[in-house]
Amino acid sequence: MTIRIGIMGHGNLGRGIEQALAQSPDMELAAIFTRRDPASVKPLTPGAQVVPAASAAEWQDRIDVMMLAGGSATDLPVQTPEYARMFTLIDSFDTHARIPEHFAAVDAAARATSHLALISSGWDPGLFSLARLFGNAFLPNGSDYTFWGKGVSQGHSDAIRRIEGVRDGRQYTIPIQGALDSVRRGENPSLTTRQKHLRECFVVLEEGADAAKVETAIKTMPNYFSDYDTTVHFISEEELQRDHQGLPHGGFVFRSGKTGMALERTEVMEFSLRLDSNPEFTGCVLVAYARAVHRLRAQGQCGCLTVFDVPPALLSPLDGATLRATML
Amino acid sequence: MTIRIGIMGHGNLGRGIEQALAQSPDMELAAIFTRRDPASVKPLTPGAQVVPAASAAEWQDRIDVMMLAGGSATDLPVQTPEYARMFTLIDSFDTHARIPEHFAAVDAAARATSHLALISSGWDPGLFSLARLFGNAFLPNGSDYTFWGKGVSQGHSDAIRRIEGVRDGRQYTIPIQGALDSVRRGENPSLTTRQKHLRECFVVLEEGADAAKVETAIKTMPNYFSDYDTTVHFISEEELQRDHQGLPHGGFVFRSGKTGMALERTEVMEFSLRLDSNPEFTGCVLVAYARAVHRLRAQGQCGCLTVFDVPPALLSPLDGATLRATML
Repeated sequence: MTIRIGIMGHGNLGRGIEQALAQSPDMELAAIFTRRDPASVKPLTPGAQVVPAASAAEWQDRIDVMMLAGGSATDLPVQTPEYARMFTLIDSFDTHARIPEHFAAVDAAARATSHLALISSGWDPGLFSLARLFGNAFLPNGSDYTFWGKGVSQGHSDAIRRIEGVRDGRQYTIPIQGALDSVRRGENPSLTTRQKHLRECFVVLEEGADAAKVETAIKTMPNYFSDYDTTVHFISEEELQRDHQGLPHGGFVFRSGKTGMALERTEVMEFSLRLDSNPEFTGCVLVAYARAVHRLRAQGQCGCLTVFDVPPALLSPLDGATLRATML
Repeated sequence: MTIRIGIMGHGNLGRGIEQALAQSPDMELAAIFTRRDPASVKPLTPGAQVVPAASAAEWQDRIDVMMLAGGSATDLPVQTPEYARMFTLIDSFDTHARIPEHFAAVDAAARATSHLALISSGWDPGLFSLARLFGNAFLPNGSDYTFWGKGVSQGHSDAIRRIEGVRDGRQYTIPIQGALDSVRRGENPSLTTRQKHLRECFVVLEEGADAAKVETAIKTMPNYFSDYDTTVHFISEEELQRDHQGLPHGGFVFRSGKTGMALERTEVMEFSLRLDSNPEFTGCVLVAYARAVHRLRAQGQCGCLTVFDVPPALLSPLDGATLRATML
């Protein structure tokens, strides 16, 4: 029996999930749900059904795991509790500060109806969270460092595009090599915001716009840019289309800790990702956690979980004996 | 209630476990068990009891988790099934090829007596195994790469010391930087044994020994050195004592995989360790897994487990709500 998957939403992440399902023979795409006109959605999977989001309730018997591919700002705070009353589900809610309240809302909805939900999967939160948990569990005396990039930040790209005179723009977050190297050597540096990341912007101007004024507006923008060393490149529409259409991302999580009776030795753990495609890799992570949440539901669990609660073996299509023989 | 720990064996790993316990306020050292004369064992923990290994059975009511710190060649294949009949326990059995048979023996012993055992914890097997499992679960189309070092290999150091004319020696396994960089860039290289690691030896000769002959004996030794580019340095006893007494180690696990409907994009996952002290870090990992196995036993589980079966949250002394608020 393959695991029947529903995908709610068909933006970058929804398509990333679809692409990951194509590599998972134990899973099948049952339907894509959309709030747009279903005829306007072009699935990547031959023969895939696209149906209205409003019809989801009718699909409860035909879907084993509903995978929510909406945004964390407005979609998921509403959708995840709502669909947790109907489906075993998974989301990638990524507003770190609001995870506890999201967890509480989803847990209440899922428990009330005996369903199981897993929230905040993906790579951060998700795999980076696991790296932080492992690091703190193994090295209780130590420091955490998380760096992001090199990668496209959607939020910062949007902020550039809102400036008057800007037609289009892309922002890359870049970790500073010297800071990475110092952490990696176990030097436990204290790093300011400016010492951890650079911001590099590629901007297409509206005709007649004042480049110097736009550059100043970017570099002095509070929260987004003013605490960073920021570089601004003005390029043509053609260059933006040719060189900056991908969504690469990645990052580094370090735990640098001390061991020995006098804490005299240093141990450094590092986890990193270098991703050509942020949404496609996120889709891969979500699909493996969908497999795990389906199995945990079959064991009778209900309520809300996170990646912290999932035994790693459940992520793999292979059985325990095969995993032990080939990967342990 | 603190978790009461027994340590079986007091070599490098037993001491590493003791040092890790000193950083774990939720755990306490109940006793160190030894096959040597207990009076000859010097615990690092003030007031720690050292008792004969043969008395272990009398400690069943005073120990929550027995941590085995013996070797994989001869100790653990006997000890782990034996003590799994008496205790919740954990070992670091690291002979990869024999893990399935070790698992079967321990599982049978533990089930027969309703105990719980976790085998093959540590960093490889252990954390590196988890990195391989995660990599394969998220990126089903891809390649695995594991590199070790820079670090001291006990097996290779022992092999050097068995050569006629050698008084003492230390061997470092060193990953080749160009190979690491190629994997990191997602180039998916095919690498021979020689292209992955270098071997660097520091040798103290017996008086009158023939250096050229020793160097040839090392470099041509089958299995250990002949497939590698090996460097041999002859140093004094004083230099060996001064510069090569530590047990540093570490390594890198990569998963380089493809995403997209046509597998046209590359995603690289990397996990690495840089350890000043291999046994102290291994002790830290084992202590966190001892905490987890104690909790799983309290939930009623029995039989044999590995790191693949443990929900990550159970490794941490913090509760779920705190973990979600601070690390997710």
